[in-house]
Amino acid sequence: MKKLINSPDAVIPDALRGLAAAHPGLNVDVENRIISRAERTPGKVGLVSGGGSGHEPLHGGYVGRGMLDAAAPGEVYTSPVPDQILAATEAADAGAGVLHIVKNYTGDVLNFRMAAELAEDDDVRVVSVVINDDVAVEDSTFTAGRRGVGGTIVAEKVAGAAAEEGADLDTVAQLAREVNERSRSFAIALHAGTVPAAGKPGFELAGNEVEIGVGIHGEPGRQRGEFAPVKDLVGYALDAIHADLPVSGDVLVIMNGQGGTPLIELYGAFAEAADWLQGHGATVARNLVGNYITSLDQAGFSITVTSLTDELVRLWDAPVSTPALRWGV
Amino acid sequence: MKKLINSPDAVIPDALRGLAAAHPGLNVDVENRIISRAERTPGKVGLVSGGGSGHEPLHGGYVGRGMLDAAAPGEVYTSPVPDQILAATEAADAGAGVLHIVKNYTGDVLNFRMAAELAEDDDVRVVSVVINDDVAVEDSTFTAGRRGVGGTIVAEKVAGAAAEEGADLDTVAQLAREVNERSRSFAIALHAGTVPAAGKPGFELAGNEVEIGVGIHGEPGRQRGEFAPVKDLVGYALDAIHADLPVSGDVLVIMNGQGGTPLIELYGAFAEAADWLQGHGATVARNLVGNYITSLDQAGFSITVTSLTDELVRLWDAPVSTPALRWGV
Repeated sequence: MKKLINSPDAVIPDALRGLAAAHPGLNVDVENRIISRAERTPGKVGLVSGGGSGHEPLHGGYVGRGMLDAAAPGEVYTSPVPDQILAATEAADAGAGVLHIVKNYTGDVLNFRMAAELAEDDDVRVVSVVINDDVAVEDSTFTAGRRGVGGTIVAEKVAGAAAEEGADLDTVAQLAREVNERSRSFAIALHAGTVPAAGKPGFELAGNEVEIGVGIHGEPGRQRGEFAPVKDLVGYALDAIHADLPVSGDVLVIMNGQGGTPLIELYGAFAEAADWLQGHGATVARNLVGNYITSLDQAGFSITVTSLTDELVRLWDAPVSTPALRWGV
Repeated sequence: MKKLINSPDAVIPDALRGLAAAHPGLNVDVENRIISRAERTPGKVGLVSGGGSGHEPLHGGYVGRGMLDAAAPGEVYTSPVPDQILAATEAADAGAGVLHIVKNYTGDVLNFRMAAELAEDDDVRVVSVVINDDVAVEDSTFTAGRRGVGGTIVAEKVAGAAAEEGADLDTVAQLAREVNERSRSFAIALHAGTVPAAGKPGFELAGNEVEIGVGIHGEPGRQRGEFAPVKDLVGYALDAIHADLPVSGDVLVIMNGQGGTPLIELYGAFAEAADWLQGHGATVARNLVGNYITSLDQAGFSITVTSLTDELVRLWDAPVSTPALRWGV
C-alpha cells in the first residue's frame, strides 16, 4: 500500500514540520511532539487534548484561539506518553489551571492521569473530562466502557470558547462534561485504513461487507454487516444513537469522513441524516460535513449528534481560529 | 468498490440535497443542478464556475460571500450543459455582468462559450477566463492545451474578493487572468479513484508505480514513474513547476489531496514543499493544506504555486464565507 511518506518512522515528525510551516500561529515542538498556541492569554484556563496520531485534524488541527491551547500527538494509533502530556499541560498553563479532554481509551486515560498527577506536583491544577460518546459497543479492544470519538470535537470547541471568555476551570470542565452527556456517535467502515508501519489494511472486508460500529483505529464494532445504500447505513447509525439518547429539538450533527471517503459521498450521507432527523422531530441547527476525526485513509463515515441548548449554540458559534475550524475571525 | 451512495444515478442529487441541508446560505436547485448564493448584492459583478462533479469541494463548496455567486456541477467527470450554465449565469447576474471561470477542458470550454452566447442574447454581459495552470502536459485526453486545476481556486478567491469590493467586470476578469498567469500546478497519483457508475478504479497502478502528472479525472500525465519517498515526489512536482515558471518571492502554495490521501500525509508533503521552496529562494506567504480539488477517492496530491503580489495577498486575505473556505467572517 503506497503512502505519501518518507518512511514509516518519519510520518509524525514530517507532519509536525508541515503543521509548523503551514500555521505560524502555532508553536510546534517536533522533537517532543507538542503543538501549542504561540499567543498566550494570562489567567485563561488552558485546554489540552491528545491521543494517537492518524486521526487528523484531531487534535493538532484544533489548537488555536477559541479551542485547544496544546495537543500531544502519540505514535499512530498509540497514546502519547505522560511526560509529553505534562509538557503540553505546562505549555497550556496560564495560571488558571488546565482542562484535560481525554478520549476514553485505556492508554490515553492512564497516561493523562499520570501527567495530571505530575502537573499537580508542579502546582498546576488539572481537571480531566473523559469523552465516551460512541454508542457502538460498551467495552472494546482498547477501552473499558465506551470509546471517545467525534463528541470530542464539540467538547473542545465549546469548552475552548468558554475558556476564551474567561470562565473558570470548573465551569469549563462542566461544559465539556455537558457536551459529552449530550453527544452520541456511531461509525461504519467500508474499507480499512492502512497504518504506515504495517503497510497493509488493518482488517479485511469482503466486497459485500461493512464494519458496523467500527472504532477510530479500525477496531471491531458490533458486527460485520451487509453493504447497503447510504440511506440504510445512515439510518442504522442514527437508530443506534436514538436508541441510546432519543434525539429531539435542536441538534448539532457532524457527518464525518474517516479519511478515505470523498466529500461528494459525505454530503449524500448528510442529506440522509438530515431527512432522518427531521422525520424524528429533531432540527439540524448546526453541522459539519467533512473529515474531522479520521482513521488514516479508512473509507466510511461517523455521525455525531449533540443535543443543543442556547448556551451550547452560542459557544459553538463563538469565534475560532485553528487549522481545521475557523470562523468569526 | 463499495461507495457511500444510494445508487450511481443518485450521487449528484443526493450530494446537492446534502449541500442544501448543510448550508442555508446557499440556494440549491437540485433538479437543475445549480448552486447559488441566497443573498444577492445589486450591482456586483457575478462569478460563475462549474465543471464535472467528483472534484468537491470544487465548485459548489466555493459559492458564497467573497467567492462564487453560482456554480453548475455536471455529471461525474462530465461538463455541465449550456442551459445549466446559462441558468447559473442568470442567477449570478446582478446588473454588472458575469465572469465565467472555466477550467480548460474541451467540453467545459465549449459549453461555457455556448452559455455565454445565450446570456449575451439575454443582454447579460459575460467575460470568460480560462484557467490552464497544469504544467504536466501540453495537450491531454480532455484538452487542447494545458489542463485547468488548482489555480482555479485561487482565481475564484481573488476575483471573488475584488467583485465583493465593487470592482467592475473587466477588472475582475483581469485579476482572474493574472492569477492564472502566475499559477502553476502539478499532480501525482498513488492509487486511482473510482467513478461510482464504473464501480472500479479508473486505472491500474502496480505496487511500485505512480502516475506522474496525473489529471483530475485520473487521465494520464507524463509517465508512469517509480514510487518514491514523498520528498522526491514533491521535488519532482516542484521541479516541473519551477522549470515552467521559476519560483521566487512570496508564493501561495496549495498542498491539495486528491480525496483519498489522509491529512497526516498532506502535512508531510507540505513540509517537503516548504523546504524545497525555501531552498529555491521563495517564501511560502500563504497556504492551504487539505482536500480542495479532488478526484473522488483518488490517492495522491497536487501542488499549486501562485506567485503573489501585495494586491493578490490582500484579496486572498479578504473575508470569505463558503462551505470550503471561510475566514474573516
